[in-house]
Amino acid sequence: MDTTTLDIFASVSPLEYRYLHMPEAAEVRAYLAEEAFVRYMAKVEAALVEAYAAEGLCSKEIAQAVAQAASRITAAEVYHEEERIHHETRALVNCLAQKAGATAAPWIHLGATSEDIIGTANALRYRDFCRRMLLPALCELEKTLISLSLREKESCQIGRTHGQHAVPLTLGFALCEYVSRLGGRIVRLGECSDNLRGKFSGAVGAYNAQSLLLADPLEFEKTFLATLGLKPADHSTQIIEPEYTLDLLHAAVSLFGVFANLSDDMRHLQRSEIGEISEEFTAAQVGSSTMPHKQNPISFENIKSLWKVFVPRVFTAYLDQISEHQRDLTNSASSRFVGEILCALYIATLRLNATLGRLGVNRAALEVNLKKNWHKTIAEPCYLILARNGHVGAHERVRKAVQSGENLSAWLSKELVRPLTASEENTLRGPEHYLGLAIKKTEVVCQEWQEKIAALEVFQSRRDCRC
Amino acid sequence: MDTTTLDIFASVSPLEYRYLHMPEAAEVRAYLAEEAFVRYMAKVEAALVEAYAAEGLCSKEIAQAVAQAASRITAAEVYHEEERIHHETRALVNCLAQKAGATAAPWIHLGATSEDIIGTANALRYRDFCRRMLLPALCELEKTLISLSLREKESCQIGRTHGQHAVPLTLGFALCEYVSRLGGRIVRLGECSDNLRGKFSGAVGAYNAQSLLLADPLEFEKTFLATLGLKPADHSTQIIEPEYTLDLLHAAVSLFGVFANLSDDMRHLQRSEIGEISEEFTAAQVGSSTMPHKQNPISFENIKSLWKVFVPRVFTAYLDQISEHQRDLTNSASSRFVGEILCALYIATLRLNATLGRLGVNRAALEVNLKKNWHKTIAEPCYLILARNGHVGAHERVRKAVQSGENLSAWLSKELVRPLTASEENTLRGPEHYLGLAIKKTEVVCQEWQEKIAALEVFQSRRDCRC
Amino acid sequence: MDTTTLDIFASVSPLEYRYLHMPEAAEVRAYLAEEAFVRYMAKVEAALVEAYAAEGLCSKEIAQAVAQAASRITAAEVYHEEERIHHETRALVNCLAQKAGATAAPWIHLGATSEDIIGTANALRYRDFCRRMLLPALCELEKTLISLSLREKESCQIGRTHGQHAVPLTLGFALCEYVSRLGGRIVRLGECSDNLRGKFSGAVGAYNAQSLLLADPLEFEKTFLATLGLKPADHSTQIIEPEYTLDLLHAAVSLFGVFANLSDDMRHLQRSEIGEISEEFTAAQVGSSTMPHKQNPISFENIKSLWKVFVPRVFTAYLDQISEHQRDLTNSASSRFVGEILCALYIATLRLNATLGRLGVNRAALEVNLKKNWHKTIAEPCYLILARNGHVGAHERVRKAVQSGENLSAWLSKELVRPLTASEENTLRGPEHYLGLAIKKTEVVCQEWQEKIAALEVFQSRRDCRC
Amino acid sequence: MDTTTLDIFASVSPLEYRYLHMPEAAEVRAYLAEEAFVRYMAKVEAALVEAYAAEGLCSKEIAQAVAQAASRITAAEVYHEEERIHHETRALVNCLAQKAGATAAPWIHLGATSEDIIGTANALRYRDFCRRMLLPALCELEKTLISLSLREKESCQIGRTHGQHAVPLTLGFALCEYVSRLGGRIVRLGECSDNLRGKFSGAVGAYNAQSLLLADPLEFEKTFLATLGLKPADHSTQIIEPEYTLDLLHAAVSLFGVFANLSDDMRHLQRSEIGEISEEFTAAQVGSSTMPHKQNPISFENIKSLWKVFVPRVFTAYLDQISEHQRDLTNSASSRFVGEILCALYIATLRLNATLGRLGVNRAALEVNLKKNWHKTIAEPCYLILARNGHVGAHERVRKAVQSGENLSAWLSKELVRPLTASEENTLRGPEHYLGLAIKKTEVVCQEWQEKIAALEVFQSRRDCRC
Repeated sequence: MDTTTLDIFASVSPLEYRYLHMPEAAEVRAYLAEEAFVRYMAKVEAALVEAYAAEGLCSKEIAQAVAQAASRITAAEVYHEEERIHHETRALVNCLAQKAGATAAPWIHLGATSEDIIGTANALRYRDFCRRMLLPALCELEKTLISLSLREKESCQIGRTHGQHAVPLTLGFALCEYVSRLGGRIVRLGECSDNLRGKFSGAVGAYNAQSLLLADPLEFEKTFLATLGLKPADHSTQIIEPEYTLDLLHAAVSLFGVFANLSDDMRHLQRSEIGEISEEFTAAQVGSSTMPHKQNPISFENIKSLWKVFVPRVFTAYLDQISEHQRDLTNSASSRFVGEILCALYIATLRLNATLGRLGVNRAALEVNLKKNWHKTIAEPCYLILARNGHVGAHERVRKAVQSGENLSAWLSKELVRPLTASEENTLRGPEHYLGLAIKKTEVVCQEWQEKIAALEVFQSRRDCRC
Repeated sequence: MDTTTLDIFASVSPLEYRYLHMPEAAEVRAYLAEEAFVRYMAKVEAALVEAYAAEGLCSKEIAQAVAQAASRITAAEVYHEEERIHHETRALVNCLAQKAGATAAPWIHLGATSEDIIGTANALRYRDFCRRMLLPALCELEKTLISLSLREKESCQIGRTHGQHAVPLTLGFALCEYVSRLGGRIVRLGECSDNLRGKFSGAVGAYNAQSLLLADPLEFEKTFLATLGLKPADHSTQIIEPEYTLDLLHAAVSLFGVFANLSDDMRHLQRSEIGEISEEFTAAQVGSSTMPHKQNPISFENIKSLWKVFVPRVFTAYLDQISEHQRDLTNSASSRFVGEILCALYIATLRLNATLGRLGVNRAALEVNLKKNWHKTIAEPCYLILARNGHVGAHERVRKAVQSGENLSAWLSKELVRPLTASEENTLRGPEHYLGLAIKKTEVVCQEWQEKIAALEVFQSRRDCRC
Repeated sequence: MDTTTLDIFASVSPLEYRYLHMPEAAEVRAYLAEEAFVRYMAKVEAALVEAYAAEGLCSKEIAQAVAQAASRITAAEVYHEEERIHHETRALVNCLAQKAGATAAPWIHLGATSEDIIGTANALRYRDFCRRMLLPALCELEKTLISLSLREKESCQIGRTHGQHAVPLTLGFALCEYVSRLGGRIVRLGECSDNLRGKFSGAVGAYNAQSLLLADPLEFEKTFLATLGLKPADHSTQIIEPEYTLDLLHAAVSLFGVFANLSDDMRHLQRSEIGEISEEFTAAQVGSSTMPHKQNPISFENIKSLWKVFVPRVFTAYLDQISEHQRDLTNSASSRFVGEILCALYIATLRLNATLGRLGVNRAALEVNLKKNWHKTIAEPCYLILARNGHVGAHERVRKAVQSGENLSAWLSKELVRPLTASEENTLRGPEHYLGLAIKKTEVVCQEWQEKIAALEVFQSRRDCRC
Repeated sequence: MDTTTLDIFASVSPLEYRYLHMPEAAEVRAYLAEEAFVRYMAKVEAALVEAYAAEGLCSKEIAQAVAQAASRITAAEVYHEEERIHHETRALVNCLAQKAGATAAPWIHLGATSEDIIGTANALRYRDFCRRMLLPALCELEKTLISLSLREKESCQIGRTHGQHAVPLTLGFALCEYVSRLGGRIVRLGECSDNLRGKFSGAVGAYNAQSLLLADPLEFEKTFLATLGLKPADHSTQIIEPEYTLDLLHAAVSLFGVFANLSDDMRHLQRSEIGEISEEFTAAQVGSSTMPHKQNPISFENIKSLWKVFVPRVFTAYLDQISEHQRDLTNSASSRFVGEILCALYIATLRLNATLGRLGVNRAALEVNLKKNWHKTIAEPCYLILARNGHVGAHERVRKAVQSGENLSAWLSKELVRPLTASEENTLRGPEHYLGLAIKKTEVVCQEWQEKIAALEVFQSRRDCRC
């Protein structure tokens, strides 16, 4: 086996040997692997010479030669050259120069500092990955959640606060919490990925080299980056302002946080004593190596677990806000790990979507749990009816009545100075009559997000045609 | 001393005994102290009854009685009642009820769950604090930075990457990095604080209680919250979606990150060997208890240190994204600490502004450092001139020339096949002639932010009149 | 109200206005308040002059004068002087000098850098706080857990993995997990607090000043610190190696992590559908401001919530491992917040102990849950009996049998080539007969920790007599 | 290319495509790769059957068959089986069973829950990795630091606090800070890795299955684990108490923190204005893609950067302290990433050692910087001489003298009532005469750690023979 091939099980990284295993995940590598990074860098280098040609500084032939060289570059050869000179970007430039020939060579990377290429290439590939893979997958998940929410909008369920039965709602309403929160985060992730920026401002951001070569470096930076579909950073030193990436990672890990909350809810609803939902097991699937009966909420546990791995990593990005003077290099190794966070989020999105797509609902359990404590959960409407009729201390009186084990419905009739209205009487008939706006709110939220997601998808697909 | 009075030096929290000491900081308590929290809650309770009156459910006299009661509430009495019943919000309600009288009492808090009041009150006070104190202070700091940046826009300085002399820029350009980054964060903080939301959706967010009392609970929630200048959360359970506050805290700690980077830059520029800037010491000020000569960059060190304290705290907010089902209470204690982060950021803003306002610049040191390595930092323009003239391997040739100690300027003349142009010759005359767009970019960035900050201030002041 | 007095509800810090409210917590201030810090510093300054006197450098009268001055120092006067000279330690020295008189004055702080005093004073007060308050409280909690564990050692409970019924154990066994884990952490916290170190090595740790004054500065450092019951850091710069405090904080937050796990377990066992345990409510206690029936697991929720606040703070200590060269001051503000972590842990310890002390156990619910799924949880012993008798694929066969709804006990009899032994038959009679070593292991663990805690307490009390 | 082979540059993880590239790092895979995990699990399964045979439960032939099967297991086949049954450990058991034959099959994994194998296998491989690779590499680094420290023990250097010249020391003394701190962490890491524990207590830790099979399960657990060189956890549920691994990771990231501090010191000493040390560049090495003159502190920057990546990851371990009841699975994915932290630490250790091994010292720069501010840094000895002679307010008087630009040495002679002693006069002759115990302390610390490291190495090698 040559040195650039690795048995997958010889890898130390769980992302490699385990989580990128899924065939659906393979495409991730086209953006987030090192090969992809090198290709994106080459693409940026080629675009730069192209922009020089457009400006009339060099010939179109030179630009074409560089573009061709760029299309044939491999990470392996760049790493080979890097071993000699210990500088990754200059190694790339040397490889490109060799392929493009002596006439083109001097124009490659001219005026650029490494970060002009690296920072721009990373903005580009992370944005592409978000647009083409992550956001579409998230939109699918959102649509699955909307379907599920609408399907279960009338499935009565006991609402729970502090793990205690509170007042009723519906399963669809409980799920549409995540339609809303996830939707909000998707929009935010989209904004942040669209706001990734490039740069072409040289070694300290003051356009020193550019000023030697170009009449209007600020304008050139804009038009050059526009050919890649990017805008320049508002200001740059050797590096792009770190807040663009930081905001993206904040959006990503806070999105993961919504996954984690949803997963915890789903885990607990599968507790043996609750049993309102279930992950579907295949016929051959084993739940425990020693307890043959076990069927565990492993997908939701897995997603919660990945959240624990990746939420702390945003801290690296907070630390990377600090780079001394026009840049120290202490963000170099660390910025290489950004892709892992996006990759993990993508994998979790696929898994969550698949799991929700086959979520089982146990309607009998929903009903049993809903009714189990109606003699106590009826306390809120009783208190409200009492209070609305002007009874001072209504809350305290109901609290004592429930503590002393009264039948609250009967007790209330005695307490009230006037008979219950028909509507009040109806409410007290059972938990399924005290649902508030659970169904309506579910419809409102789902419709809102159906429209927003559709708009987002249209917008994305239009943009993809342009790029 | 009674039990509600504390000697300030008997406090354990450094915010209390040390950092809120500054007279300028006292006003912070009007938003972030527990007394303020209780008053804001009372205000929300009063607004709710007011909204009921507007809806015709209760009389205007009742609303007035509650408003009056709310204006007289104190944290001390609420805590006293809480000791008896172990529930803070219900304690507040009881206190209000006693002050407002028996007719008004049943209407207080009617249909509300505690979090309808707490969540809304917190959104309100954090927003008010941001609008009235934090954002204005940040705008002042931004203006100080702009002034400094413009003042020093022509002060040549050696650019540094990896702590090594790179190519020249100006001190003003170096500072305008922070004009841009800080400006961006201020805008983000403003957006996030303006986007804090309220709720009036009851115990599990399904408007159960509200549906018993109101014809259109969704509409009522909107109009009631609008009287407080807030919008409802897109969806709520017992609690408001946590992402609104999380985004605010992300904006806050990432703003702190910009402070930390600026402070590190300023600290290092004060190193004994660099000495380009200085914090001004007062005549009586002591720098060290044993080294009488010491004058240390203590303000910048302090700000970096506070960043270390407060950046990890955003993690609590990431953890608080998870609340089981319609809410567990595990975000209750933790959400009480949100105010400390905003408070610390405010204190750091004041201190940073004061320190930058009296920043000393040592122009002699700037010049010495700028010129010290021109024989080496001239390498970039030499390489560019060589490459632009079609010399293959220009970078490598200059690299070797500089390593072998050549006088690069002379060496370049020999290498080139044609004489240097006047412009090239000028560039090579000295580092102050190779500034790129340092001055122009400083002007562009500063002007942009002068306008944005001015617009933000106008907007804020208009909004404040309305509220 | 004068400037050094604060209404407690005017404080921003929840530790102040809310959590230090408990009378049991008041004593905390004697170690962790700013007043305590100043007194500890004064104590160290006095001990230094005392050590000079013992060495014969100054008279005993001078040492006595300084000791007297130290005993009368207040934080208020030190802060007043600091306002003038902007240096806390030098302010303290000036105040001491004024009280001690002109003859003694030159000996105060002689040869010391501020951190010789500050670092030593902090080591001393954190150690004292741990020894006298935190560790005793933790030992009480451990004893409560042991009692509870032993009391419930035979209370059968269904074991749960993934929230699913697994195989049986006892409540006492489940609790003794925490006897073991908490015990381990207490020992670690004790070791780390005992290992806090002092220093007297001067401005950069090279004993420059000390060498001018003393014949054997290394020996003097040892004997001087020994009078305070401390050892010197193995090496110091201006500051003590940060790892001593970091290890203490790691022990503290990992201890908090054990609290959090225990609290989560207790919260979930109180779910409406499980209901195996309960927090005892007082007669007047309110659970919800709108749902009069609610009784929530608020104490365990509170502890989990405080964990979320304080576990991220250990990050500040990881960041404080970095101090440039012989020290930058960026750990100055941050190290002031160390006390808050210890304070919060103490408060959580008291609350957890009180809550566990009145924990209610619902034996009926334990039994219902235990038996609910015996038709499935019997799968493990069935598989084991089958396998032990040489049946290949035993696990798979039982898995399929349980899936197809077989009565496993009957099914097993048919599958086996030989009759069940008496012991096997007994095991299959019911979950209370398949407890493994639940009871015995509970006894073993509890006895082990009873002894270790007793030994720790004896050791602590002996040491306290000495100090 | 088959599905289990990966082009290294197609990997997303920087550990794979970049940092494990070094030939010295390849051996890491023998412990931390997935293949290694599977092999270690197989080893534990074989040891279990071996222990059953020793107990007389099954024949030695069966144990041998299983041992042989275990030696031939591959991750690829286990993953293949897992795809069918969705359970990794049961997949391993099935593969082993197939290889070992029908007679042996029922004994494999008998009585074990997956975590009995997984937890034990992880303890084993992390301990082996620490003992055989990480600790030896760290000892090498410590020895390099000791050599460097001793070599430079007399190289005078200005001490710096707050980045400002303070009082003198030696470069060796400055380095021996890291001898001490690193040494302390190595010892701690050794203790923690030696304290990793195994378990054989079944599905909920109550030895249910074990009690069905064995007379004395506690004793069996001890003897079985002893054959692997491990002790059982003090208590276990389905999983081993998480604090053993947490403590190891705390030791690891705090060790990384020491690396980061050292690297920052080394970076700053290479600043263009300071230039006291340098990383050695090779002849062909490029420092910047645009500035041919640049030689940057890239190795130290890299190590600081890796610290930023890995220090936040300990937070995952803090989160993994929480596992509901006898275990939820939310630590499953997360615990897979533990190896990455150890791997990164190992890589950083190798790089730091190599970099320090070729560290250049610029003695001229050391001297220039040392003397540059002697007219000010002389202030401390002046103040001390004045104070020791009973002058009240000595510190303040020297502070004013230095501020007004006095020649302090001359000024002191005038101030003093008696002539300077010979020793005092000598001290004031120059900074190299005011070194305190810099040299001696360096020797003391280095000798202490030479001995401790030697003892540790002897101990390790003895232990390795046994295992």
